[in-house]
Amino acid sequence: MYYIGVDIGGTGIKTGIVKDDYTLIDKSSIPTDKSFDYKIIVNDIAKQIDDLIAKNGISKDEVGAIGIGCPGAINSEKGIVDYANNLYWEEVPLAPALAEVTGKTVKISNDANVAALGETKCGAGKKYHDTVLITLGTGVGGGVVIENKLFEGFESKGTELGHVVIVRNGEQCSCGRKGCLEAYASATALIRDTKRAMEKDKNSLMWKFSPSLDKVDGRTSFECAKQGDATAQKVVDEYIEYLGEGISNFVNIFRPQAILLGGGVCAQGEYLTKPLKKFVHENTYGGKNIPEPEILIATLGNNAGIIGAASLVIPD
Amino acid sequence: MYYIGVDIGGTGIKTGIVKDDYTLIDKSSIPTDKSFDYKIIVNDIAKQIDDLIAKNGISKDEVGAIGIGCPGAINSEKGIVDYANNLYWEEVPLAPALAEVTGKTVKISNDANVAALGETKCGAGKKYHDTVLITLGTGVGGGVVIENKLFEGFESKGTELGHVVIVRNGEQCSCGRKGCLEAYASATALIRDTKRAMEKDKNSLMWKFSPSLDKVDGRTSFECAKQGDATAQKVVDEYIEYLGEGISNFVNIFRPQAILLGGGVCAQGEYLTKPLKKFVHENTYGGKNIPEPEILIATLGNNAGIIGAASLVIPD
Repeated sequence: MYYIGVDIGGTGIKTGIVKDDYTLIDKSSIPTDKSFDYKIIVNDIAKQIDDLIAKNGISKDEVGAIGIGCPGAINSEKGIVDYANNLYWEEVPLAPALAEVTGKTVKISNDANVAALGETKCGAGKKYHDTVLITLGTGVGGGVVIENKLFEGFESKGTELGHVVIVRNGEQCSCGRKGCLEAYASATALIRDTKRAMEKDKNSLMWKFSPSLDKVDGRTSFECAKQGDATAQKVVDEYIEYLGEGISNFVNIFRPQAILLGGGVCAQGEYLTKPLKKFVHENTYGGKNIPEPEILIATLGNNAGIIGAASLVIPD
Repeated sequence: MYYIGVDIGGTGIKTGIVKDDYTLIDKSSIPTDKSFDYKIIVNDIAKQIDDLIAKNGISKDEVGAIGIGCPGAINSEKGIVDYANNLYWEEVPLAPALAEVTGKTVKISNDANVAALGETKCGAGKKYHDTVLITLGTGVGGGVVIENKLFEGFESKGTELGHVVIVRNGEQCSCGRKGCLEAYASATALIRDTKRAMEKDKNSLMWKFSPSLDKVDGRTSFECAKQGDATAQKVVDEYIEYLGEGISNFVNIFRPQAILLGGGVCAQGEYLTKPLKKFVHENTYGGKNIPEPEILIATLGNNAGIIGAASLVIPD
């Protein structure tokens, strides 16, 4: 049997065919209709699925069900997108609408949640059943898997792991609070802190890597730290400490078997995970009898959304 | 059918008979054997249970199973107390040992966990299935119930909700980290902050309520704030803001239907919950479509440990 994973974003919709062993057979991408009318988008997705299975010689009967990952606040039980600001959606019954058009069972969850499930089912966390995924991108997203099932909180409104205050009255966060993990551990925060450090040290190697402040990205500090620049190293060290503080909190709260890291900053691999593991080891609760989680980089990359969405409907 | 709840502490062991409708029939208390030899304690508990059911005219056959709440790090799946510092226990197979002596099924969990389960099954949270209990006592404990079941984390080592950093590099916590919720929201922290405020303001009404610093307790600031003392009010306001910051984090993480507050500080009732609810409303993630949790004072009081322990084994 084949399953469909749909990864909805504000600019594009990626859809893939995933086998029940989690192999990605094929995928396609279409632009998100700019009217953001969900009925148009639902029809677009249905056609995209039809085209993709036809191209791969798969009949409709061979498709078991459809999973959707979507940004925003989702009520997964009802299949409704309560609110998705980059799609201009409020109270959109996306799953029932796609189910009606396709005649298939459709499940939906938040994009970070499906990534967590996908990474646990067949990615970095496949050896484990209790995991926490943290995505380090423009923002900080989170997904939690408990005993191989997605944990979403009441009406699927939990696991906003980026919006956990670690520095009371600290940096302003996009959510309105101050001092959230996102305000320190997102790529956006890393870039802000890199720029601040560069402004204070005009001799830093970082000015060679990124000759103007608008060229600074999430790699600037890491790459220059690797080349021995002390100012860059300090930016990296502080970034890792803030992220480590957040991860240590999640370990004390969820005590997962593994922390999975996704998002752009993860390209740093061991430069990120090695010092993080040390920090978390030193800062989590308990003694020698307490199991220590692995800290791993997510492996599904750009396909995490599609495979994760499909994993909502692939049976165990 | 009747069930037994056993609430183990460093000084005493409370045992109760609980009906399957969660009515507490009778209870007794014995001192904890000071050798802390678990085999002696297991025999003491077995005798305590025998005496209690005999006194109440209940036969052994009418006892369904036994639940235990115990402080420390527990592996509930194996029934082992991995570590309990106030009992001087390490790797103690408490549940299997009591099962062998009594011939009954025995389950065990951490004391804050069983309190959370008990309060959700038949206390302040009985209308809800997704709750977070926070106990505000000498330390800050936590328990999480998801879909009417205790969530404990891998090897039952999660939900250390007191040990979540909310103020990076803040007050020293007993766990070794700095800035944990426990270091701000425990009764111990409240007393510390009350003393600090009194030392700074020799005219505060708090000096009348607690004439010397060693007389200060968790009520000092609250009671004097009620009488209009500005310095006391500031202590209370700050305490509530720190606690509110922690609760807002837990709401964003777990999105429970209700937050349940236990422990000594909760005697303040609405003086605590009303401003807390305002803070949490203003500081949690999401808009109008997001369900807002109730904030409620735990109602089982001194029986929370017994009833909670029994709730580990009372069938749904």
